[in-house]
Amino acid sequence: MIKTELLKQKILELGKVVGNDTVRVDMFLNHRIDADLVTKLGGEFYRIFSSSPINKIVTVEASGVAVAFAAAQRFSVPVVFAKKGLNKNVGDDVYKARVYSFTKQSEVIIGVAKDYLDENDRVLIIDDFLASGSAAKGLIDIINQAGARLEGVGVVIEKAFQSGGDELRALGYRVESLAVIKSIDGGKIVFG
Amino acid sequence: MIKTELLKQKILELGKVVGNDTVRVDMFLNHRIDADLVTKLGGEFYRIFSSSPINKIVTVEASGVAVAFAAAQRFSVPVVFAKKGLNKNVGDDVYKARVYSFTKQSEVIIGVAKDYLDENDRVLIIDDFLASGSAAKGLIDIINQAGARLEGVGVVIEKAFQSGGDELRALGYRVESLAVIKSIDGGKIVFG
Repeated sequence: MIKTELLKQKILELGKVVGNDTVRVDMFLNHRIDADLVTKLGGEFYRIFSSSPINKIVTVEASGVAVAFAAAQRFSVPVVFAKKGLNKNVGDDVYKARVYSFTKQSEVIIGVAKDYLDENDRVLIIDDFLASGSAAKGLIDIINQAGARLEGVGVVIEKAFQSGGDELRALGYRVESLAVIKSIDGGKIVFG
Repeated sequence: MIKTELLKQKILELGKVVGNDTVRVDMFLNHRIDADLVTKLGGEFYRIFSSSPINKIVTVEASGVAVAFAAAQRFSVPVVFAKKGLNKNVGDDVYKARVYSFTKQSEVIIGVAKDYLDENDRVLIIDDFLASGSAAKGLIDIINQAGARLEGVGVVIEKAFQSGGDELRALGYRVESLAVIKSIDGGKIVFG
């Protein structure tokens, strides 16, 4: 796919390798958002998942929001983003899950208000990264609590040298990644 | 404007009044995002500010990201969102400001990596709410640290009974709000 080639090119050009397991894509995805590119990525998720009866997109704040929104525009469905840490305005009526943040190296609680997810929802999870799969598993836990059905998981960048993607596929979920990083060795990114 | 009438209608239909000073719009803007509506709001910000030489949109995670992104799509410029609390992947080279969160009733530090904002930037701030103006002032502080120029502030909902909007206008900034709430009395929202 041309769009995923464009994504890989951006990762190679602008990604910053840190150690042997981290690629920072703050330049176009995570902090500074390339609106044109992310719009295209949203379209790519639509192409991949458009045959599924998706009526809601779910992600986690904050770095997943833009790409999830770009996909939601194409599906014409709402996005619900799980919040990290609950504030007084969300209320107590919240589905919660524990998630280990790879970047922050600590556990956080994510939550979705019960009003915004229910048994009628056919959900596509969209996120920027899939590594250990902790965020995706937390979202799946929340989707299950709501009685909703998960139609698939779409991620921009999968780190295939971590086990999250394999574990989710082994559980029977459809996981589609726009770019798969097989390894980061000596500062060099190898795509799968 | 038809789009802002649609927004006011959504606020009246779906907004939840809490006390005499809070309207929760979790249903379409802050937690569950109505992608079609927010896309239109982005277009409205483009209409309002398109005569200004804007080359970057700046917001604060997480609830500002979707509407800022929708505006950025129309301007074909990147979005940079200030992060709340810095993680190890952002690096130390960050412009920082203190912001008081009205919803969380506590102070947080927001930050933008120095790589993503500089003296060539002509910035439009986009945010979901303007109340005390603390977030906007924090972003303006960061924009000033970077030597960038602020072209304007666009907010979806301004609470005109709090002083943020007036203070920013008194400082000479162009502030445009798509919906202005003049008062919330006895559970009734009155637009300005």
